[in-house]
Amino acid sequence: MPDAGPIPSQRLASFVAGALESRGVPLADARTVADLMVEADIQGYGTHGVFRLRQYLARLAGGGCNPAPRIGVDRETVATALIDGDNGLGHLAMAAARDLAIEKARAVGIGWVGVRRGNHAGPLALYVRPQAEAGLLGMAAAVGSANHLPPWGGSDLLLGTNPIAFSAPVEGPDPFVFDMATTVAAMGKIKTLAQQGLLMPEGWMIGRDGQPLTDPARRGDGFLLPIGGAKGYGLSVAIGLLAGLLNGAAFGSDVVDFTTDTTSETNTGQFVAALDPAAFGLGDDFAEAAARVFAEFRASPPLPGHDPVRLPGDGRTARAEARRRDGLMLNPALRRDLNVLAGDCGIDPPFPGEGG
Amino acid sequence: MPDAGPIPSQRLASFVAGALESRGVPLADARTVADLMVEADIQGYGTHGVFRLRQYLARLAGGGCNPAPRIGVDRETVATALIDGDNGLGHLAMAAARDLAIEKARAVGIGWVGVRRGNHAGPLALYVRPQAEAGLLGMAAAVGSANHLPPWGGSDLLLGTNPIAFSAPVEGPDPFVFDMATTVAAMGKIKTLAQQGLLMPEGWMIGRDGQPLTDPARRGDGFLLPIGGAKGYGLSVAIGLLAGLLNGAAFGSDVVDFTTDTTSETNTGQFVAALDPAAFGLGDDFAEAAARVFAEFRASPPLPGHDPVRLPGDGRTARAEARRRDGLMLNPALRRDLNVLAGDCGIDPPFPGEGG
Repeated sequence: MPDAGPIPSQRLASFVAGALESRGVPLADARTVADLMVEADIQGYGTHGVFRLRQYLARLAGGGCNPAPRIGVDRETVATALIDGDNGLGHLAMAAARDLAIEKARAVGIGWVGVRRGNHAGPLALYVRPQAEAGLLGMAAAVGSANHLPPWGGSDLLLGTNPIAFSAPVEGPDPFVFDMATTVAAMGKIKTLAQQGLLMPEGWMIGRDGQPLTDPARRGDGFLLPIGGAKGYGLSVAIGLLAGLLNGAAFGSDVVDFTTDTTSETNTGQFVAALDPAAFGLGDDFAEAAARVFAEFRASPPLPGHDPVRLPGDGRTARAEARRRDGLMLNPALRRDLNVLAGDCGIDPPFPGEGG
Repeated sequence: MPDAGPIPSQRLASFVAGALESRGVPLADARTVADLMVEADIQGYGTHGVFRLRQYLARLAGGGCNPAPRIGVDRETVATALIDGDNGLGHLAMAAARDLAIEKARAVGIGWVGVRRGNHAGPLALYVRPQAEAGLLGMAAAVGSANHLPPWGGSDLLLGTNPIAFSAPVEGPDPFVFDMATTVAAMGKIKTLAQQGLLMPEGWMIGRDGQPLTDPARRGDGFLLPIGGAKGYGLSVAIGLLAGLLNGAAFGSDVVDFTTDTTSETNTGQFVAALDPAAFGLGDDFAEAAARVFAEFRASPPLPGHDPVRLPGDGRTARAEARRRDGLMLNPALRRDLNVLAGDCGIDPPFPGEGG
C-alpha cells in the first residue's frame, strides 16, 4: 500500500539533504538548506519550501549555482556587514546574515547585514521570525529572482516581486511575522488558477495594451501589478536599492530569471536586519505592550461579512507545531515530483510505493 | 492693490517663525521649524507644509504641545539612539534624529534613531532627502497623528496613515526620494480637497456602511483604505511597531487625534535611519549605479495612455529651485487663513491687502 499520509518532517529533510548532496553540496550545508526548506513548509509557506527543490537542483546541475560556496564577510562594522554568498544556495548566505544581524543587534542595538551573490532563499519569514523568537525585531527584503513587472507606466520587465518582511516579539503564542510581495498577486497563484481554468480578478495583472488582464493562461502577455499602483512601484524600487544595488547585487536588467536560466549566476541581493528593544524606549516591556495593542485590534468588531480581526502571524505557531508533530501533508503533484527527483539523483524516493 | 503673486520663501518663513514665537516658541526653534515647514512647500509637499500652521498654533495655544522643549537623547549606542522630543513641535526632534542618524551612519555604516514624545513633523521627505544629498541612503517612518482606519476587517479606528519614506543618492539632478502613506490617500490630501470644495475619487475611503465615500467633508464618517488591502494593513502595523511601540510612543488606542485635540500630549513616535554605501558592496559607486538602473527604467516605452516612466523624486529638484528663486504660489484659501492667523498672533499679515 502506498503511504499517502503525512511525511515526518525529519524524513523529508533527510531526503532533501540527500538530493542536494547528490549534486555536490557538502553534507553540513545540505542539512542547513534542507532544514530551512522543510521549516518553510512547517511554517505554512508551501510555495517557497520543498516545492522549490526542482529549481535548486536544476541550477546546481546546470552550473548556475555553486554547490560548495565559501560564505564570507566582505565588509563589516560593529553594526553592519556585507556577506558574499559565493553564488551558493541562497539559504546559506541568508542564514549567516540573519545570525550576524542578531549578534550585532545584541551588541549595539541594531544589525543590518546585506547579501550579494546570493540566490533564492525561500520565504523571508525564515530570516525574521527567529529575531522575534529571540526578543528582537526583524526586517528583511530581497530583490525578486525574476522580473515580472515594468516600472510604473512602462512596458519592460525590470522589477520583481521584491518582497519585504517584518517581525516583532509579542507576548503569547504568536510573534508578529509579516512577509509580503510588493505585487498584488504572486506568479505562483496565477499559475495555479491557469491549471484550474479559472480567471484572475481584475487588478492582479495588466496587459501590454494597458488593459486589465484576467485570463491566467495569457500571463506571458502581461505584467504583475504593484500594490497601491505607483506606491507599490516606489516601494519596490526602494527595496531594489536597499537589498540589491547597495550590496553590489543585481537590480533592473541585470536580474537573471532563475526559473528559466539554470546556467548563469544570479547575483541575488537581500538584506536582513535586527533591532534590540533594549536599546530603545520600551526595552523588555516591548512584547507585553505589543500584546496589549494586538488585543485591542482583535477585539474590534468585524465589519459585516468579515472574519474576526487577525494579526499577521496569528495561528502559525500552533499549525507549525502540529506539522512538526504529525508530519507534513504535501499535495500529490509535489509528492510525485519529489519521487521523480529522487530517481534523477539516484537516491531512495521519499514516498515509496507512490508514482514518480 | 493686493499682492496675489508668489510670496518669497524667506518672507513666508519669517512670518511662520513670528507666528510660532508669538506662541512662546524660542526664536532659534521657531526658525528651525519655520524653515522646515517652508521647505516642505518648496519641495512640493503642500499638504504638509505651511498649511499645517493653524494646527500647530492651536496645539501650542491649547497646551497640547510644549513651546519650549528640551530635546534629549534618552538611550544611545554607536548605531542607535532614542530621542525624547519633550512634546515640542515635531520638526525639532525629527531634525535632531535625522542629523544623529547621519552622524552614526558615517561612523559605523548605519544610524537608526527613534523618537518618542514627538509631534507631527511635516512630510517624512524632510528627514530622508538630506541623507541622499549627503551620499547616504535614508529611511523614516511615523505613526500617523490620528487614527483613520480600523485593523483589516474591523471597525474601530486604531491605525493611522503610518507613512514611510526612503531616499538614495542618484547621479544627476534628482535623488531618489519616496514618501508614501500606507493608505491609498493621505488625510492631508483629503483636507486640501475639502478646503477646495472638490470630491475624492472612489477607493480612497469607505463609509461605516461599507459604501464608497467621496465627499471629503464627510471624512469623519468613514475609514481610509490601506494600499493592497491586508498587505497595507500589515505594513502599517509593522510601522506602528517600529516607529511607535519600540520607542515607547503611542500606537493603537493611545494615539491622540492631533487635529481635534489641542490639549493632550500625543507621544508621537517616529524613526529616522541612514545607511552609508561605503559600508556595503558598491561604496562610492552607488549613485552612479542607481543612475544607470534608473536610465533603463526611464527608457522603457510607456504603456498606451501613460506618461513616460518616472522615478519617485523626479523633477523635484528643478521645481524646488524655481520656488526658491521665484517664491511660492499658495492657494487663496491658505493665503486668507495665514492672514487670519497673523491677526490671531498679533503680527503683520503675510499677504497685506488681501482678505483674512
